Amino acid sequence: MGCSESAAEIATNSLLIADLSGVDSHGVARLTGYVRLWEVNRINTKPDIKIIHETPSTGVVDGDSGLGLVVAPFAMQAAINKAKAVGSGWISVQNSNHFGIAGQYAMMALEEDMIGIAMTNASALVAPTFSKERMLGTNPIAVAVPAGSEPPFVADFATTTAANGKLEILQRKNQLVPDGWVQNSDGGNSNDAHELKKGGALLPLGSDREHSSHKGYMLGSIVDIFSGVLSGANFGPWVPPFPAYVPMPENQPGKGIGHFFGAMRIDAFRTAEAFKSDMDLWIQRFRNAKPADGFEKVIVPGDPEREMEADRRKNGIPLLEEVVTELENLGKRFEIEL
Amino acid sequence: MGCSESAAEIATNSLLIADLSGVDSHGVARLTGYVRLWEVNRINTKPDIKIIHETPSTGVVDGDSGLGLVVAPFAMQAAINKAKAVGSGWISVQNSNHFGIAGQYAMMALEEDMIGIAMTNASALVAPTFSKERMLGTNPIAVAVPAGSEPPFVADFATTTAANGKLEILQRKNQLVPDGWVQNSDGGNSNDAHELKKGGALLPLGSDREHSSHKGYMLGSIVDIFSGVLSGANFGPWVPPFPAYVPMPENQPGKGIGHFFGAMRIDAFRTAEAFKSDMDLWIQRFRNAKPADGFEKVIVPGDPEREMEADRRKNGIPLLEEVVTELENLGKRFEIEL
Repeated sequence: MGCSESAAEIATNSLLIADLSGVDSHGVARLTGYVRLWEVNRINTKPDIKIIHETPSTGVVDGDSGLGLVVAPFAMQAAINKAKAVGSGWISVQNSNHFGIAGQYAMMALEEDMIGIAMTNASALVAPTFSKERMLGTNPIAVAVPAGSEPPFVADFATTTAANGKLEILQRKNQLVPDGWVQNSDGGNSNDAHELKKGGALLPLGSDREHSSHKGYMLGSIVDIFSGVLSGANFGPWVPPFPAYVPMPENQPGKGIGHFFGAMRIDAFRTAEAFKSDMDLWIQRFRNAKPADGFEKVIVPGDPEREMEADRRKNGIPLLEEVVTELENLGKRFEIEL
Repeated sequence: MGCSESAAEIATNSLLIADLSGVDSHGVARLTGYVRLWEVNRINTKPDIKIIHETPSTGVVDGDSGLGLVVAPFAMQAAINKAKAVGSGWISVQNSNHFGIAGQYAMMALEEDMIGIAMTNASALVAPTFSKERMLGTNPIAVAVPAGSEPPFVADFATTTAANGKLEILQRKNQLVPDGWVQNSDGGNSNDAHELKKGGALLPLGSDREHSSHKGYMLGSIVDIFSGVLSGANFGPWVPPFPAYVPMPENQPGKGIGHFFGAMRIDAFRTAEAFKSDMDLWIQRFRNAKPADGFEKVIVPGDPEREMEADRRKNGIPLLEEVVTELENLGKRFEIEL
């Protein structure tokens, strides 16, 4: 597409991390989608990514319409650099694109003995509580926390009840979705895995008011405000859609998609040694919490992805036939031997 | 109890804010509980609250076993002061007690044109996904964001499906609770509003695995780590219980309860004017989102509490008969005329 060698390598690495950790929806299966965005001039392959406003602990990065996969690590590194200097660093990003999985950027902080935070807004698929209109993206939050002898705590989750990827699996199997995942275009309950194509919406974490969907709505809103409003990117229903064929929302108030990154040095609070010792205790205690009847064990955030990665590094990454075909077509088109 | 005049005033103010905004469970109804904690020597009425470790943008506050209602505003003010100096400020607190409602501290940032963040851990009542053991508190998160002509965005929510206060209402009415709020001591579904007294647990936001309770579990864990592990306070099942008659957990790894506060200056990212104009647009757009069939309007976080406060400032704060009796008894005991 014309990206620099180093940018291409960063982006490739990002997609592979997603595939390795089992988030197939955000791995190489997305490559065709990124190429399509480039075709409609929504990806700048030679972006001038830079900090346009800053204080010692904060800043705004302009992604210059670059691949989110390349803009995001630049911004997270800026947060880490600020944390090295003054204890913590917080970067809001405007004018970016889809950045893949949030967890990988939060995890960049781990090797620096820092807590890492990453979030992004995304095109509107989620209806607020009491609404039938799509107003928020799946707006994920990731937090990575270093430990000592234990592997790190890594949480990475969409602020909706169901991730889009889970809907897609049920679509392929022609199965119904459980109550509480989606609503129809009137705002009523639906079990149709194809509901999003019919004007329906994903539901915020909590599903309905009785189960506190307003909390998922608030979480998604916070991500949107930190990523979009604080940076000067688009927000709410104005966030650019990922599929290149979907028209851009009218009257956009900002530039591109927004992200938000944070890094906090552990020893800006207490010694890394004392913290890690307590964090090991936290992890061990939760992993050994009594399982509910009928369940084997309690999971510590980060465990499933780590297990998946170990398996896939050994046995390879399984790809759907249609993804393989897409990759072969891209290879032919860009004259890359597979 | 022996608090200084100024500390008593700060604490009183805090309880009244809770009552005014409709969070009756955290208002003057708690006063007897605080007195009982003091009786068992868990509240230090003359605390030496201070920063024990800091960088330009971060720090740890030792609450010296003071009332959380007094420790928390000290720590939030420290975060605000750091944000004035270097763009953002982040304070983790050890050795504190129950701090009332989180939202009031987040809102301290508003008049400084800052975003405010407040969270706290609390004694374990919540079972992680797949567990029958109580490992986390209701661990609330509050975020307050200033706007221009619109009132501020204020989110304040427990990371559980149901707040304890809602259970108490159903207990008084002798009614069942909906599926997904609590589980029994084996980890199975329960509709008993008294389940917590029988070894059961509250469920994390999401309720069950199919509706992503692991996300509520992750959220509660993040609050616990930021508040407890980062500060050197207790965490997980070791957090001190609020009721003075409940024995303290054994082998506590830290000191008291932990909180976490953050403040980010708006103009550390972009001009306050531009931000507030976009924030007004955000609020107006969400308030005017199409309601689902059967609903009147979409609510912006902070609206219900503001409406309640307007009503109660005009019409007074209704108190339960038993709360009035408790306050009268406290008045007699401390020779205060009501």
